[in-house]
Parts: sequence; C-alpha cells; structure tokens
Amino acid sequence: MSEAQAMRDLPAIMAERRALVDAALDRWLPPPTEPPAIIHEAMRYSVFAGGKRLRPMLALFGCEVAGGTPEDVMPGAVALELIHTYSLVHDDLPAMDDDDYRRGRPTCHKVYGDAIGILAGDALLTHAFQVLADQAAAGVPALRHLRIIAEVAAAAGSVGMVGGQTMDIQAEGKVLDPAVLLTLHSKKTGALLRASLRVGGLAGGADEAALAHLTRYGERLGLAFQIVDDILDIEGNSAEMGKTAGSDLRKHKATYPAVFGLEASRQEAARLLGEAREAVRPFGEQGAVLVALADFVGQRRS
Amino acid sequence: MSEAQAMRDLPAIMAERRALVDAALDRWLPPPTEPPAIIHEAMRYSVFAGGKRLRPMLALFGCEVAGGTPEDVMPGAVALELIHTYSLVHDDLPAMDDDDYRRGRPTCHKVYGDAIGILAGDALLTHAFQVLADQAAAGVPALRHLRIIAEVAAAAGSVGMVGGQTMDIQAEGKVLDPAVLLTLHSKKTGALLRASLRVGGLAGGADEAALAHLTRYGERLGLAFQIVDDILDIEGNSAEMGKTAGSDLRKHKATYPAVFGLEASRQEAARLLGEAREAVRPFGEQGAVLVALADFVGQRRS
Repeated sequence: MSEAQAMRDLPAIMAERRALVDAALDRWLPPPTEPPAIIHEAMRYSVFAGGKRLRPMLALFGCEVAGGTPEDVMPGAVALELIHTYSLVHDDLPAMDDDDYRRGRPTCHKVYGDAIGILAGDALLTHAFQVLADQAAAGVPALRHLRIIAEVAAAAGSVGMVGGQTMDIQAEGKVLDPAVLLTLHSKKTGALLRASLRVGGLAGGADEAALAHLTRYGERLGLAFQIVDDILDIEGNSAEMGKTAGSDLRKHKATYPAVFGLEASRQEAARLLGEAREAVRPFGEQGAVLVALADFVGQRRS
Repeated sequence: MSEAQAMRDLPAIMAERRALVDAALDRWLPPPTEPPAIIHEAMRYSVFAGGKRLRPMLALFGCEVAGGTPEDVMPGAVALELIHTYSLVHDDLPAMDDDDYRRGRPTCHKVYGDAIGILAGDALLTHAFQVLADQAAAGVPALRHLRIIAEVAAAAGSVGMVGGQTMDIQAEGKVLDPAVLLTLHSKKTGALLRASLRVGGLAGGADEAALAHLTRYGERLGLAFQIVDDILDIEGNSAEMGKTAGSDLRKHKATYPAVFGLEASRQEAARLLGEAREAVRPFGEQGAVLVALADFVGQRRS
C-alpha cells in the first residue's frame, strides 16, 4: 500500500481493527453476569467507555509489519488495552486525580463507589496477564510469549507506567525541570505505547533490527502523542475531549506547554512525528499504515 | 522424614525457607534507590513488614513433594507473596477497610499517602508477573511456566481473590447466608492459598493425580486458615495480631464465628485440617511437612 493510499484508508482501517479489538475484549472479559456481578459490570463499564484503542491498534500494526496476523497479537492487544483502562480507573480515584468524568461519562468510582473502583482496576490489571498467559498455547511459540509478558509487565510497572504516575503525583504544583518532564512522560504514557509496538513486533516474529525500528517509532510517537494531548487540554473544548478543557492547567499538572510554551510544543510534536515516520521507512510499503498513523496523531483534535 | 520428626523440625524448616524467600524478594524487587525512589521504598516497606510468608512456604513444600527444588518454584513463590502483599496494601486503604496499622506498623498509605498506597499496590501486582515471566527461561519448561502464570492470574483476579474482596465489601453490615460466606472465603483467601500449592506442584513437575492431592490439601488448609484467623480476631490480643482485636467484629465483617458461633467454628477448622492431612497421605513420608503444617495452622496463636 502506498502512503497516500494508507492516509486515505486509515479511518476505515482503524474502524475495522477497532471492531476486531472490541470483539476480542468482549469475548475475553468475564461475562457481566459472572458473580460477583458488580466487579464484572465495573470492568466492562470502564473498558467499553469509548476509548480510541490506540495501544491495540499499534500492536496490530506492529505485528502486521513484522509479517504476523491479527490473531497472533490479539491477546497482547487486549492485555494492553486492559492495562491502559485500569490505569485510567485508578488515576481518576479521589486519592489520585479525582476526576468525575472521562470521555463524557461518569468515572468508574463515581458509578460504583471508590472501593469497587480500586478493585475493578486491580481486576483489569490481573486479567490482562490471564489473557496473555491463557492464549499462550495458540499461535506464538511459548518462549516468545513469555518475553511478551515480561515486556508488558516491565512497561506497566514501577519503572514504567506506574513510575510515571508516581512522578506525576509528586510533581503536582511544582515547576518541573524539562529533563524530568521528559522522563515523566516517557514513563507515564511512553512506556506502554512503546511496548505496544514491541509486543506487536514480537508476536509477528520480528527480528532484532525490525524490533529496533518499531521501538524507535513507538518512542517518538508516544512522546508526540502526549505533547498533543497536553496541547489539546489547553485548546480543546470539553465536548470533544470528554473532560473539562484546561483541567491539567488548573491542577498544576506537569505539561509540555507549561514548561516549553505552546508554539515550541507544537514544533516538538511535529519534529518527533517526523522521526517516527523516518524510523519505519525501512519497512517500505509495509510500513505505510504506521506512517499514516503518525500523521493522524499530528492532526487529532480530540 | 516421619511426621513426628516433621512436627519437631517444622519451626526450623520454616525459618530456613523464610530466609530463602526473603533473600529472593530482596533480589527480585527493584532496589530502593531506583527512581522514582518513593514507589520502590513503599513496595519494600510493605513486603518487608514481617509477614509469615505462608504462600511461598506452601509453594516450596508443594514443589518439594512433587520432586522439584526450591529454585524451580522461587519465581512463583515470590510472585504469590507480592500479590498477597498488594492485596493487603489496597485492603488497608481508606476507601476499603481503612486500617492504620498492620502487623504492629503503620500501613503503607499512612506512611506514604493514599495515592502512593494505590500505586505501590499496582506496582507489586505488576511486578509479580514480571518476576514470573522474567525467570521463565530458568528451570521450568516454558509451556508449564505459562500455565503457572495463568493459574496465578486466575486465583488473584475477579473470579478469585479480587472477587472475594468485592463480596467482602458488599457484605459489610449484612448477615450472610452460610453458603455465601463459604464462597466469600474460598475466593478471598482460599483461591491464592490453593494456587500456592498448585504452583508448587506444577513447578515441581507433579502429575495430575499429585496436583489433585495438593489442590484438595490447599482448599481445606486455606479455609481452616481463614476460620482460625476469624477466631483469633475475637480471642487474640492486639500485640500478638498486630491489629486491634475484635476489629472485624466492630466493622461488621462477615466472619465464621459470627455466622456459625465460636465453638462450631473451632470444630470446623479441626475437621478441615483433618481432611487436609488425609489429602496428602498418598505422598507418604514426602508429605510429612505438609501434615505438620496443617497442625501448625490449627495451633497458631497469631
């Protein structure tokens, strides 16, 4: 597929992959009637709250570039989305960011109470690893599957995503050193986005060179995604974002525009997305979708 | 080893195994200086708070009975203790049981704040799976290791431990049907104790018959352990338990003595421990330590 074609087809490709991912999430989550029902309802409430499925999408694209099928990577794709969802559920708790709305709907703990909010997050995180391990017999060789589990755990844990959330909590109300902000972002959102590409590559049988290209793409895209997110928080409106515009600013969150300014942030996002595109050039036409996705991230408005 | 000898040697055996487990926990947790330091300090604060290491002990004994070495099961043993610890950290949060002390020390969130309490629990749970997957290459075949990961996830998740905690939250202040109380206990503490024996058996190469014996032992011992725990909460004193005696009662927690009475609870614990002993008779002298451990649980005072 040419890049122009990929750009044109991207919305349809993303809609089709999102349907695959949503079907797998529905299939692999315990049914809402499984007792105790409230925890399974709460898990599904948060998972089916209208997310972009960016991490599964990156895993699927990474797998395809490496020569694999959607089936090869689907357990990993589902696990990444469950982990992303749990992190939002816990982030929204009163003891953390204390958000009542996300994507225009009341947050999990507002609907089910704080205790169930904590437990639903715990259950989603645990279920991610069950999906990864249960599906292990199918498709991907066992040793490679163990490597995928280790990658996901490292990206999600205390030196990855949870480490980034810890830095975020500690940073509130402080003016951050630019280098510290970069580390915070690379952990908080970067680690899981990077892992999404790597999980895709590993499931698809990528060699170390291809993995390195995907890793570089994931790092650049992940950082750009976060910067665009920060910019949208300032510029966006509540309806499109599903949360109150300027809420990061009011909470004195550590954001890119707050440290570098709005115009420099825009330029940095564009520069990083250029590097992301370059990183997947070696894949030729196979990488066209990843190039188109980088453009999509640069242009998103919500 | 004869049963009499096992009974006599059990304290020394448990002390020796506990030292092995503590050394592995120290080796496999990120160092306390790893940034962000506060999350790694909080993880270690909770892990090294003087727990009995019952789950690792059960995994080690289960592995030995099946013919394995402590090294074969150590990743599983460490993962089970990390998961147990995270469940205590989250259970103690204000939105859950709201406990300020555990094992005589301030709880994690009292020392580090509620947000870090949530994140430290998340990090411990995630790290459990990293340890399981990282160590996978060593010793145990990859497919069996994947089965171990799936068993641990199922026992810890929404149909296991988290499901039991959910029932516990929902049960507060209510009079429970005896059957519901049994389900609650079998999920909340039973699932992980049962899994500890199974993880040990799987790591040691147990066949399905041996696994079934260990599973039965684990179920009976787990339920007895919880009943004894409930009894000690009523009878114990704060110094020995490290928490306020009668605290379950005051919170109107669903407990065995509250539903069945104290004397019937004592008899039920003794009956279950008898069944646990019978379950491991087929192992002969190899099972002597498990028989002795059942006696130990029946006699514990804290």
